[in-house]
Amino acid sequence: MSGEEAIGPDGVPLSKKALKKQQKEAEKAAKKALHKKPNEGEKEEQEQEDLSKGHYGVLPLNQSQERIQRRLYKVSELVPGIAGQKVWVRGRLHTCRSKGKQCFFVIRQQKWTIQVMAAQSEVVSKQMIKFISGITAESIIDVEGVVQTVSQKIQSCTQQDVELHAHQVWVVSAAEPRLPLLIEDASRPEGEGELATVNQDTRLDNRVLDLRTLTSQSIFRLEAGVCRLFRDYLTSKGFVEIHTPKIISAASEGGANVFEVTYFKSKAYMAQSPQLYKQMAVCAEFDKVFTVGSVFRAEDSNTHRHLTEFIGLDLEMAFNYHYHEVLEVIGDMFVNIFKGLQEQYAEEISLVNKQFPAEPFKFLEPSLILNYKDGVEMLKQAGIEMGDEEDLSTPNEKLLGRLVKAKYDTDFFILDKFPLAVRPFYTMPDPQNPKWSNSYDMFMRGEEILSGAQRVHDPEFLIKRAQVHKIDLDKIKGYIDSFRYGAPPHAGGGIGLERVTMLYLGLDNIRKTSLFPRDPKRLTP
Amino acid sequence: MSGEEAIGPDGVPLSKKALKKQQKEAEKAAKKALHKKPNEGEKEEQEQEDLSKGHYGVLPLNQSQERIQRRLYKVSELVPGIAGQKVWVRGRLHTCRSKGKQCFFVIRQQKWTIQVMAAQSEVVSKQMIKFISGITAESIIDVEGVVQTVSQKIQSCTQQDVELHAHQVWVVSAAEPRLPLLIEDASRPEGEGELATVNQDTRLDNRVLDLRTLTSQSIFRLEAGVCRLFRDYLTSKGFVEIHTPKIISAASEGGANVFEVTYFKSKAYMAQSPQLYKQMAVCAEFDKVFTVGSVFRAEDSNTHRHLTEFIGLDLEMAFNYHYHEVLEVIGDMFVNIFKGLQEQYAEEISLVNKQFPAEPFKFLEPSLILNYKDGVEMLKQAGIEMGDEEDLSTPNEKLLGRLVKAKYDTDFFILDKFPLAVRPFYTMPDPQNPKWSNSYDMFMRGEEILSGAQRVHDPEFLIKRAQVHKIDLDKIKGYIDSFRYGAPPHAGGGIGLERVTMLYLGLDNIRKTSLFPRDPKRLTP
Repeated sequence: MSGEEAIGPDGVPLSKKALKKQQKEAEKAAKKALHKKPNEGEKEEQEQEDLSKGHYGVLPLNQSQERIQRRLYKVSELVPGIAGQKVWVRGRLHTCRSKGKQCFFVIRQQKWTIQVMAAQSEVVSKQMIKFISGITAESIIDVEGVVQTVSQKIQSCTQQDVELHAHQVWVVSAAEPRLPLLIEDASRPEGEGELATVNQDTRLDNRVLDLRTLTSQSIFRLEAGVCRLFRDYLTSKGFVEIHTPKIISAASEGGANVFEVTYFKSKAYMAQSPQLYKQMAVCAEFDKVFTVGSVFRAEDSNTHRHLTEFIGLDLEMAFNYHYHEVLEVIGDMFVNIFKGLQEQYAEEISLVNKQFPAEPFKFLEPSLILNYKDGVEMLKQAGIEMGDEEDLSTPNEKLLGRLVKAKYDTDFFILDKFPLAVRPFYTMPDPQNPKWSNSYDMFMRGEEILSGAQRVHDPEFLIKRAQVHKIDLDKIKGYIDSFRYGAPPHAGGGIGLERVTMLYLGLDNIRKTSLFPRDPKRLTP
Repeated sequence: MSGEEAIGPDGVPLSKKALKKQQKEAEKAAKKALHKKPNEGEKEEQEQEDLSKGHYGVLPLNQSQERIQRRLYKVSELVPGIAGQKVWVRGRLHTCRSKGKQCFFVIRQQKWTIQVMAAQSEVVSKQMIKFISGITAESIIDVEGVVQTVSQKIQSCTQQDVELHAHQVWVVSAAEPRLPLLIEDASRPEGEGELATVNQDTRLDNRVLDLRTLTSQSIFRLEAGVCRLFRDYLTSKGFVEIHTPKIISAASEGGANVFEVTYFKSKAYMAQSPQLYKQMAVCAEFDKVFTVGSVFRAEDSNTHRHLTEFIGLDLEMAFNYHYHEVLEVIGDMFVNIFKGLQEQYAEEISLVNKQFPAEPFKFLEPSLILNYKDGVEMLKQAGIEMGDEEDLSTPNEKLLGRLVKAKYDTDFFILDKFPLAVRPFYTMPDPQNPKWSNSYDMFMRGEEILSGAQRVHDPEFLIKRAQVHKIDLDKIKGYIDSFRYGAPPHAGGGIGLERVTMLYLGLDNIRKTSLFPRDPKRLTP
């Protein structure tokens, strides 16, 4: 390499002056970034000639100084087929260990990792190796190196058959030397010997780090998939996507559990669901609608499955004769989502399972529909004492999930015809027996993820039902009036996105599937 | 037809008893629905034998009594090819006029309409014609009839070559006799002679009716298309969809114009944008993210283009060397959206234009990028007096839009390198001259629809910039800290969905493109 020009990180040969200036800047910045004061010994070393000058250091802050035409390879592109090629790669310094005259470090790009070696040579100086060894974990670095095949597979990396031999190493953005959590610890399954793991609050307090684990990366990519599959299925069935207001003038669904907002000089509330608005859209002749958006619940519930803010996947649909027309669309939609996840996110699922083992999610096609009565009967036979028209408690839901799994081998099922008394006022009573209703919940691994029903679409009957529930009619006047100009029979449901992701993956806490979760005790980050 | 069995609306022949009961119920309900008291004359008529008994009336409230296996045809399916066939159709009674022994009415299904004729015959009695004439506009009805070709095109309907000859007419859901607005009036272009139109507040107060116009139906179908095209383009480029919290602990972007929320026993705020969270997601190694969600602005702006709650289409992306890498992705994304709308929503665009005429939306490929300085220069040459580093006023934006259109023949362009002083604290200054910044706005028909920039990704520099803007550092500590563990250079932008729809269609008010708009004076419905 001697005789070769010094090449700056922009790919342009450096003039001596520029080189000197850049080097000086870089070293100064590197020192600062690495929080080290030069001691006498180091000073001496640096006074020795440095063969790698201009081949390492800290880059100046990127302010888009120049539009460099240089290809940055993805780690996933580094394969034996390009062995011998010199490439530039940008990624995070995942781990680094140096021994004597060489150091090994791993560059990480999301789920991909590659080992890099820097060994003292004509192009890599002792000073450069020292510099590399001092780079803090999680820093973003640019590395130029030659792709080399290896004789023994590198088990710890995704790129097992090649490593990179570094010629240049530049710090793009330095991480602080003390991280509040280590990615390795945060990635470890619980109870693996004596090794450290990270508790949930530390994770959530430092979410920007916690989200870098393979597990988190996989969870949120899969969650994006749930949304996409939900929308694509419904769009293909003629549904129209709508957006409903989150600030509402009155606490329309009963009044409890709503957050109050100061709206200029008056008061308003945060919508608990898009319920009323999606129904109004159906009455406004959109007929089949869906919406994906934030919903807000001022419930002081500190459980594994409650959030004060979450993403609702809501749909509502006019039907011809029977609400089961809608029930079946929703059931089929879930089957479509489950299949899509299985097919398109197999790798993500297996990565999550490595840290949080879970049984594969099972479902039937078409979906199992059970009558509420029959569900209660199964519970009774299992020794539970409960009334026929009593709502399901959380433990009973869980138990019923296990009983259904044992009997039907499915983690997803629909429970139809709930007791009218335990449902909201706008739920349509059963035509034969008003103790029951045309309403349903859907369950994944024994936890409710959707609640839905045929709605009352007749304004006079709706008023009667609201009165039974002691709801202030003034507050729902606009809602009731929307059924006065011809309203089709309709049904729908609301799904909690984070719950679907959590339960599909068999996770134990909804905070794992909310990017920046909100609960009664957490409003940050 | 005499001798044929009476067929119920469920398609099953009726027993005499059932028939009688149903008829009685239906008549009772019909009377009630049509808000008429039977007078003596009517009573007499009904006492005469009614040949159509059991072939018309008001259906009992649909409580999913029965799952009827009967095909309901779509209006769009009624074409000359099925002439002679007897079909069932459900739709809204759009208009009705009776003359003597026959009546003509139009059934509407969203954008499709068909004429139906009921003429006195062996199957259609005088009483039945009277009943039909009394059905209120906008009621939902089921009609059984025979498809017949017509000799003269029916200009007023979408199905111009056929009409339906009714045998049965049933009211599924009756509309009130007095509508707060007529669909016909709400559908009329402004200033068409002396005919009535509907003002905006009446429309918005009765949104469920206003949304039934062809124009509204088309606007919101196209708006759903904007979202879909936005997401599909970015997903295809490797972006991950995320969801960010709307309730935040501190007014992070400056403090003014945020709504305050009571959060259990403390205070919180509604997020003005997903800005900080999408940046944190980029730092959390998602690298390229987008999000679609509600954003909240407590600005007391009562203009044609401000809402207090709207849908933000946000994206953020790590780049390698220069923020123009991101700028170009966004420009290309817009081109993709515009093309997609042109190709997939041509009919909707032309329907909207019938009521609200507008020039077709023009754009260049690749998008035009103008320097802010050059934009100001164009304005100066047009006689505007303004400083080089002054922000664009709304009239100047509009004028610049017209100048650009005249010079480049495009309704979309990007204005790059805004003065630093007029941008938020997290905007990256220009590397050569800190009077300027690496920031941009994008415009449609002379109005801003996106604001974006390269962001400061260095925590120390970010603190400096926040101090210049006199921002309380305590309130943004979490935000600043997220850049301490290695942060890639990144840029992004936020788009107002309702503005894009409004300006693409050349509409004059953003309330036309928000399903249930919120402004300082409107919180209902």
